[in-house]
Amino acid sequence: MTKKVEKQDILVLIDENKQKYLIYIEDLTQKKKGIGVFNPIDLIGQEYGKQIEIGSKQFWIIPASILDKLQTIKRRAQIILPRDAAQILMFCSIEPGHQVLEAGIGSGSLTLALANAVAPNGQVISYDARQDFIDHAMKNITQAQLQHYVKTKLKDVTKGIDESNLHAVILDIPNPWEAVEHAWNALKIGGYFSSYSPLISQVEHTVKKIRSYPFIEIQIKETIQRDLVVQEQGTRPSFNMLGHTGYLVFARKVL
Amino acid sequence: MTKKVEKQDILVLIDENKQKYLIYIEDLTQKKKGIGVFNPIDLIGQEYGKQIEIGSKQFWIIPASILDKLQTIKRRAQIILPRDAAQILMFCSIEPGHQVLEAGIGSGSLTLALANAVAPNGQVISYDARQDFIDHAMKNITQAQLQHYVKTKLKDVTKGIDESNLHAVILDIPNPWEAVEHAWNALKIGGYFSSYSPLISQVEHTVKKIRSYPFIEIQIKETIQRDLVVQEQGTRPSFNMLGHTGYLVFARKVL
Amino acid sequence: MTKKVEKQDILVLIDENKQKYLIYIEDLTQKKKGIGVFNPIDLIGQEYGKQIEIGSKQFWIIPASILDKLQTIKRRAQIILPRDAAQILMFCSIEPGHQVLEAGIGSGSLTLALANAVAPNGQVISYDARQDFIDHAMKNITQAQLQHYVKTKLKDVTKGIDESNLHAVILDIPNPWEAVEHAWNALKIGGYFSSYSPLISQVEHTVKKIRSYPFIEIQIKETIQRDLVVQEQGTRPSFNMLGHTGYLVFARKVL
Amino acid sequence: MTKKVEKQDILVLIDENKQKYLIYIEDLTQKKKGIGVFNPIDLIGQEYGKQIEIGSKQFWIIPASILDKLQTIKRRAQIILPRDAAQILMFCSIEPGHQVLEAGIGSGSLTLALANAVAPNGQVISYDARQDFIDHAMKNITQAQLQHYVKTKLKDVTKGIDESNLHAVILDIPNPWEAVEHAWNALKIGGYFSSYSPLISQVEHTVKKIRSYPFIEIQIKETIQRDLVVQEQGTRPSFNMLGHTGYLVFARKVL
Repeated sequence: MTKKVEKQDILVLIDENKQKYLIYIEDLTQKKKGIGVFNPIDLIGQEYGKQIEIGSKQFWIIPASILDKLQTIKRRAQIILPRDAAQILMFCSIEPGHQVLEAGIGSGSLTLALANAVAPNGQVISYDARQDFIDHAMKNITQAQLQHYVKTKLKDVTKGIDESNLHAVILDIPNPWEAVEHAWNALKIGGYFSSYSPLISQVEHTVKKIRSYPFIEIQIKETIQRDLVVQEQGTRPSFNMLGHTGYLVFARKVL
Repeated sequence: MTKKVEKQDILVLIDENKQKYLIYIEDLTQKKKGIGVFNPIDLIGQEYGKQIEIGSKQFWIIPASILDKLQTIKRRAQIILPRDAAQILMFCSIEPGHQVLEAGIGSGSLTLALANAVAPNGQVISYDARQDFIDHAMKNITQAQLQHYVKTKLKDVTKGIDESNLHAVILDIPNPWEAVEHAWNALKIGGYFSSYSPLISQVEHTVKKIRSYPFIEIQIKETIQRDLVVQEQGTRPSFNMLGHTGYLVFARKVL
Repeated sequence: MTKKVEKQDILVLIDENKQKYLIYIEDLTQKKKGIGVFNPIDLIGQEYGKQIEIGSKQFWIIPASILDKLQTIKRRAQIILPRDAAQILMFCSIEPGHQVLEAGIGSGSLTLALANAVAPNGQVISYDARQDFIDHAMKNITQAQLQHYVKTKLKDVTKGIDESNLHAVILDIPNPWEAVEHAWNALKIGGYFSSYSPLISQVEHTVKKIRSYPFIEIQIKETIQRDLVVQEQGTRPSFNMLGHTGYLVFARKVL
Repeated sequence: MTKKVEKQDILVLIDENKQKYLIYIEDLTQKKKGIGVFNPIDLIGQEYGKQIEIGSKQFWIIPASILDKLQTIKRRAQIILPRDAAQILMFCSIEPGHQVLEAGIGSGSLTLALANAVAPNGQVISYDARQDFIDHAMKNITQAQLQHYVKTKLKDVTKGIDESNLHAVILDIPNPWEAVEHAWNALKIGGYFSSYSPLISQVEHTVKKIRSYPFIEIQIKETIQRDLVVQEQGTRPSFNMLGHTGYLVFARKVL
């Protein structure tokens, strides 16, 4: 049962070096770094799963998954990596139907992961103090076709949160401690607070603030990932390893 | 806006030592290790978010989240921990509406996380070669009210997979390499294969088998988590750290 | 060429569970936890390398190495573990003949490793503010027969250092930053400063102080060790893993 | 009390980027990558600990330590890094006066660390099957002035070991399991076997072979190091982290 590229598709091209390119068929001819000039419309009719040649390079052609969209997001700022986003989804217990607030929106990468997790009947409310970030992120989210699950607001979350009864408040801002009180007010009982911070002092300030409000299950986690390399000559952990990304603080509202 | 415990609720009681107990109000009086004898019905009318006394201990009373259900699952076998389940959900790009096959069912902990992620319009098909494991896991899943998203099958996945066009096939069995061919056949183009194995030889066999089929984006990840401890006297990584749990193999079907 | 236990020997008994007991033949009969009552003199004439029975348990009998002495040291306080001591010796470039200052002496475990490394013509000067710690540590060091390379001083290192032209100053005290100035004064050009601290704030204070003096090559290292387990069924990292011990700060004096 | 550069000195120049250059004053004028053309003799009379200008760059001038020599060794092959060498010295309990066999010699980096640790009355015997490696390594060792503690032998250690009664046998060869029997024969009772291998299959073969001889205290360790970064804006683990280097196998001879 073969499936062929159609006009409205979103797909990824993956080259021999595992480089991945997100393609919208309806995009006009464009020069894409790593591929060269080509017209996505020419891909119509190609069979998914096959390797095709563009220019002088070979590419696998695959329907785009949420992970593909996350991994190819256009970045304006440091993004929360999939491995950390995965932990946020799990330890904030995000479920379909949830109302979740996120601030700031960044490049929309966490937004995208959250929107996927609350769909089809939940919503992500995303605050950012800068309109240009919101615009950039919403372009990414719209291209991933998740815009129906995201509502943005031009607002500094440390100045207050309009919503209430939220399932989770997730902060990726330099000063999460200044939004702890607002988060507590905006959360449901049992709702989850989370913040992502690279620096230890950020974690300390945030945790100290959290402890002055009725929060329980306070934890701080750092996730480290090692790749294993399986080769003809033998298996070993990768010689390359990503160091620190950020700490995740989690807490849960009580009365 | 207070919310009170009602008759059909599922809640958690959390004590001062962060021990957590999942409670079904409709359960009959029972002796629960760590709480003592008490009748869940007596909790009706209590206000969520408050701390209450049962016996001589204090407990926070909170509506149960999916994470609570995962963390309190009754175990018969080693379970896939939330931190690893989180990576599976992310790197298999599980989305609402997906059809996902899992084998074996174990205690149903990964099943539960998957069911939450594919709801409300997707489905987890879970194979296990032992009926007693299926029965035990389905009890956990039913208590978590996710049974509508799970279909079980008494079947050894290494003997074949009946389904086709699956978004993901996820294996937690001692010999995942023996199901690689079936997984390839059962997956959609671009669909994700994943296996969880504690041993390096299991990973090697599986990866070698995967490489003999049209799979791309093959990776092997190990997730390590460190907790940070923030105390009055200062901050440091935790002196206690969980070592190895398992390796996650990921791959993606092409033609 | 067999070697037998003689009167003045120091040896270790190692049981089937890898428990290790340091034995001085000249000790009187004593009850030793894990062995029971026995008279070390009865071991005279036993062949090294053999397994012998004491009580109802089997023990390997081996001449004691410095590592054995380190691993069996009688502890009064948290000790610097061999894996961290190893890094101190390396990154302070300890050589035979060096003059090295250490404070505090703790249980003498780092002292012992340093004494071994500077012998036979160097010296460890060890400050501690408490005579009881010095006495306890020197008992350990004397039993290890390294007392000729160690000179102790009842003195708080934050009050000053009498020595000069030292190859290294190594601090295991709660407030290493208060001894940074004294360390700089006491070191040779190119000499190494090192401090061991579990807490991040200790590291921060120390590094900030170091930066206000002419020190270069400032680094902060944390050492994590994972054991690999090779079994009939397969190989994997250990499920058990020691978490955080302490951070090591290193710096080097210039003008 | 100032100390000035003299004719026979070995020193290091360290630039603002922590790059380090080992300099022998008696070397002739030479072009050194990172410094440019200069005549080391011109450094005579400079004060140690000061920053001097060569070309248009600033360099700290410091007497060379063993660590400096290790860190600036001229490499022909992958070397055992100082952090791993440190663990070998500790867990083989290397002491002044020991007789230690090493194979192969590689670039002489471990040789150098061992020679420093057994000096002034011990000896490192270093086997290598290739004369060019021995020559290259001995140049490094001679420049570090440790040649009196090293004896080399053009020999494949898997073909046999001539020495006996050794305190340690340390292997950095692709097939350490083929030298396990020879190592056992050559070691003293209680002497230490160690091998360094990047691949897990190498560890497995070696450990299986070790278990078929009378060895105890068998362990396999992997050392991971994280740097902490202290900056004005805050403290965090380094974003860069070295991944896997190699596994260290340790064992100890009994009868």
